[in-house]
Amino acid sequence: MSLTEDRLSIFALGGVNEIGKNMYVLQYDDDLIVIDCGSKFPDESLLGIDVIIPDITYLLENKEKIRGMIVTHGHEDHIGGIPYIIKQLNMPIYATRLTLGLIERKLKEHKLHVSTKLHEINSDTRLIFGEMSMTFFSTNHSIPDCLGIAVDTPQGTVVHTGDFKFDLTPVNEQYADIHKMADIGRNGVLVLLSESTNSERQGFTPSERIVGEHIMEAFAKAEGKIFLSTFASNVHRLQQVIDAAENTNRKIALLGRSMINVVDIASTLGYLRLPDDMLVDLQDIIQYAPHRMVVLCTGSQGEPMAALARLAAGNQRHVEVSPGDTVILASSPIPGNERYVARIVDNLFQRKANVIYGSGTVTGMHVSGHASQEELKLMLTLMKPKYFIPIHGEFRMLHQHRLLAEAVGVEADNIFILNNGDVVDVTDSKAYQERKVPSGNTLVDGLGIGDVGNIVLRDRKVLSEDGLLILVLSIAKADGKIVSGPDIISRGFVYVRESEGLLEEVHRITVTTISQLQESPSNQWGSYKQALKDAVGKFLFAQTRRRPMILPVIIQV
Amino acid sequence: MSLTEDRLSIFALGGVNEIGKNMYVLQYDDDLIVIDCGSKFPDESLLGIDVIIPDITYLLENKEKIRGMIVTHGHEDHIGGIPYIIKQLNMPIYATRLTLGLIERKLKEHKLHVSTKLHEINSDTRLIFGEMSMTFFSTNHSIPDCLGIAVDTPQGTVVHTGDFKFDLTPVNEQYADIHKMADIGRNGVLVLLSESTNSERQGFTPSERIVGEHIMEAFAKAEGKIFLSTFASNVHRLQQVIDAAENTNRKIALLGRSMINVVDIASTLGYLRLPDDMLVDLQDIIQYAPHRMVVLCTGSQGEPMAALARLAAGNQRHVEVSPGDTVILASSPIPGNERYVARIVDNLFQRKANVIYGSGTVTGMHVSGHASQEELKLMLTLMKPKYFIPIHGEFRMLHQHRLLAEAVGVEADNIFILNNGDVVDVTDSKAYQERKVPSGNTLVDGLGIGDVGNIVLRDRKVLSEDGLLILVLSIAKADGKIVSGPDIISRGFVYVRESEGLLEEVHRITVTTISQLQESPSNQWGSYKQALKDAVGKFLFAQTRRRPMILPVIIQV
Repeated sequence: MSLTEDRLSIFALGGVNEIGKNMYVLQYDDDLIVIDCGSKFPDESLLGIDVIIPDITYLLENKEKIRGMIVTHGHEDHIGGIPYIIKQLNMPIYATRLTLGLIERKLKEHKLHVSTKLHEINSDTRLIFGEMSMTFFSTNHSIPDCLGIAVDTPQGTVVHTGDFKFDLTPVNEQYADIHKMADIGRNGVLVLLSESTNSERQGFTPSERIVGEHIMEAFAKAEGKIFLSTFASNVHRLQQVIDAAENTNRKIALLGRSMINVVDIASTLGYLRLPDDMLVDLQDIIQYAPHRMVVLCTGSQGEPMAALARLAAGNQRHVEVSPGDTVILASSPIPGNERYVARIVDNLFQRKANVIYGSGTVTGMHVSGHASQEELKLMLTLMKPKYFIPIHGEFRMLHQHRLLAEAVGVEADNIFILNNGDVVDVTDSKAYQERKVPSGNTLVDGLGIGDVGNIVLRDRKVLSEDGLLILVLSIAKADGKIVSGPDIISRGFVYVRESEGLLEEVHRITVTTISQLQESPSNQWGSYKQALKDAVGKFLFAQTRRRPMILPVIIQV
Repeated sequence: MSLTEDRLSIFALGGVNEIGKNMYVLQYDDDLIVIDCGSKFPDESLLGIDVIIPDITYLLENKEKIRGMIVTHGHEDHIGGIPYIIKQLNMPIYATRLTLGLIERKLKEHKLHVSTKLHEINSDTRLIFGEMSMTFFSTNHSIPDCLGIAVDTPQGTVVHTGDFKFDLTPVNEQYADIHKMADIGRNGVLVLLSESTNSERQGFTPSERIVGEHIMEAFAKAEGKIFLSTFASNVHRLQQVIDAAENTNRKIALLGRSMINVVDIASTLGYLRLPDDMLVDLQDIIQYAPHRMVVLCTGSQGEPMAALARLAAGNQRHVEVSPGDTVILASSPIPGNERYVARIVDNLFQRKANVIYGSGTVTGMHVSGHASQEELKLMLTLMKPKYFIPIHGEFRMLHQHRLLAEAVGVEADNIFILNNGDVVDVTDSKAYQERKVPSGNTLVDGLGIGDVGNIVLRDRKVLSEDGLLILVLSIAKADGKIVSGPDIISRGFVYVRESEGLLEEVHRITVTTISQLQESPSNQWGSYKQALKDAVGKFLFAQTRRRPMILPVIIQV
């Protein structure tokens, strides 16, 4: 019996020790399935990078084993990487109707929709890939049509929760399959992978329905126009906005590309009940009395180019926020975005609007889509896993989730906190961790996938902080004397017209350095450049405490 | 009677519509006093900028009228600009003992301490500048020795609160002069300037003393070493840490430059009671049992170079966080810093430490130093001002503070929400706003004060996002033909070795463009450069969706 026989392997290529770019792999011998394919946004150290996706070296090396990709739901951190990955490595994709609708739009944008096979599944589907047999269960989350996955293998059952909360009074009657979860648990779960986003939060995440109540309350009180900004993908919340608009006899206009897209997809596929004549074109708003209008828009995270920021700044062509209008931010700022949101609220108050903003816990205008501690314990209790792998979270979240698992009786030694690429292997129904597969961040910059590396980023950082000084001079081949120049080009360092004295001195140092080098004939052109960098760099740091990138351009004539 | 006679003028050169760089001016005819001189940190759009200070054009133009600077307390947003401003415009500085101690250290670092006159004041001081007579009152805040200011002028009394909260059980018996505030209010206040930092928070900010109780509780439970990180300037909190260490029979080691500085200044000046033999050198920690040590350190905001981050990363030479140690973050992350703090907590959990982190409201390890809504209303009620100017806050905070003032009876028309530079003039005891003085941000980059402007910043932004491509070629004066080159230098754009095809194409386009220009002899060198930028830029954008800065360097030979 070879090492790989009858072995179940579980690992993440993205999603542990981070929020974003979720991608998990289950492999049983020569059959491999991928779960989710997310993207994440770069932090400010990754200058100029648009998006980050998982490194799929392992998948490329095991191409022939891949049976398909299961996508648990339609959020960017689960589907955002799909077009970039599919471009390199096509595979069939399995997801629910709404999730597929969102994936399809993405593939169309990248002209990949014809070449990619999409398979619709639902919570009653059974898929069989080699010796792995998959069933699904519905969960509650901040987007409809979410699935958890149970994979039966000869080694035992592996459960992947996807993102979830327990919302016992869900909007649109999208109930979770709690009984099915109980059945799965009763039949025995070998390994549970459960999401950890809110594992630091005590208690039980409130139902989305309470947001609807607060929206209705605010709509009933509002006198002018209402602007409501929320995550476009939160279809449940959009439904509650539509319901409140209907109840208060208001029309709705949509603002922001992703809002228009999601409303289109979700209403076409039947996930959004939109009364006839409810939607109004933005440019026709002017025809309606202010107290008859709701503008549903994107940008609740303060994104500077999104609809809400443009409204707040008065840069929207068709509609403006007027004194007495009500603006509702139905969201909680994600850490890091508070400043952007604050800027928008400042601007809205300057327009004399009534603004409902701040923590969702205080305003009632936002609830999380993720399970808090009691719900995580409930999932662990339902599934009663032998082994537990907390996923979908930064280290402290995984750590807190571990403590919860221990509290409900999972053996401490049976809990694996992994890094991306760490493999949990199971043989003879025993799980152990002793090997790694390649993993990492693939950076997308414009059309380039993975072509920007550390050297490029380091250069961008130097350039961003202190700019650039180029010294151009031509030197005679014969005697090493300067023929023309040095000309000095400064970008992002100092404004030339105000720094003439400084740059004159750089000129002088350049000439001196070259003439000194002439005297020691052993010097090569490379050392000319280094000597200029050193001499000018030292001078500039002493004068300015800045370290611009210095690029000598020497032409031999 | 000329326009300027008997006129009182009040304005901010920094501190309204922002948090940071506080600087307020009171002028009565030809006497001018400056209140505070703060700095603030740049946001991420100001690439490479170290610090921002107020634009003092108005002060430079009215140099001969300046009688001095009063500093309300020793926080950076009130004293951080002093060395930069004093370098350009020396003036006597008046502040309490601790505040002066902190200012003096700053001036010494900039070698300005000999040339600057420092005057110690306290809450009993009376200062007279022309027709302005100033008295002071003590307030509670997150640093000792804070003052509010009451300025009697022929037009009436102006009160500036400084930063404050009402802590009725203050640490070290630093009581606020509430009776004095009541007296000032009883005698009539014409204009109140009051700080707005926490005007969005309901209720009453808790006493610093509750932090001490939580610290004591955590110390009593801790088994290994204790690391406690907090703002160095919060001397009250440092005292409570010292007290808890004494009570649990632990020694204290200090880590982080500002912690060492503040403990030195505050204990020397008598603001910190430090038992004999309490302090231990960091390198001697090894001699003590873990349960006998506390390390008091900086970096509670997650600053990547500060002590706590280095400890979490295992980069501290003399001491390390070991399994079972307790790490207390006695702070709440300032918006924008959550990510940095989260990274540290992740690392500390990986070291198997017990970490007390998160919102101070939950952990009890932090309370704000600023007045919440009920305290702001109390100040307004004590002062009963005719006119009110909310200061020290972003627009929404000033706006919320206005609503509070209206709620306690200040006339809506008598409330001024200002921008920096907006002047409130008072003549015949009537206040009105109709003129502006110059104001703005002065950017400090290294040793340069104000020498980095929009063009430099715009270049830094382009360079940071997509890098740089330099095309070097020499062209014959005679016939415009290429003599050498083009050589292509790429920095921060693509890594050359992996992009040979792309750069070969750039080479080809450059040659083609030059030869086309040769054929139309009217072209000048300037148009050569522009044509190269256009052709190469267009090609690169189509190929990569990036827009690097393109710098053609053409040498005529």
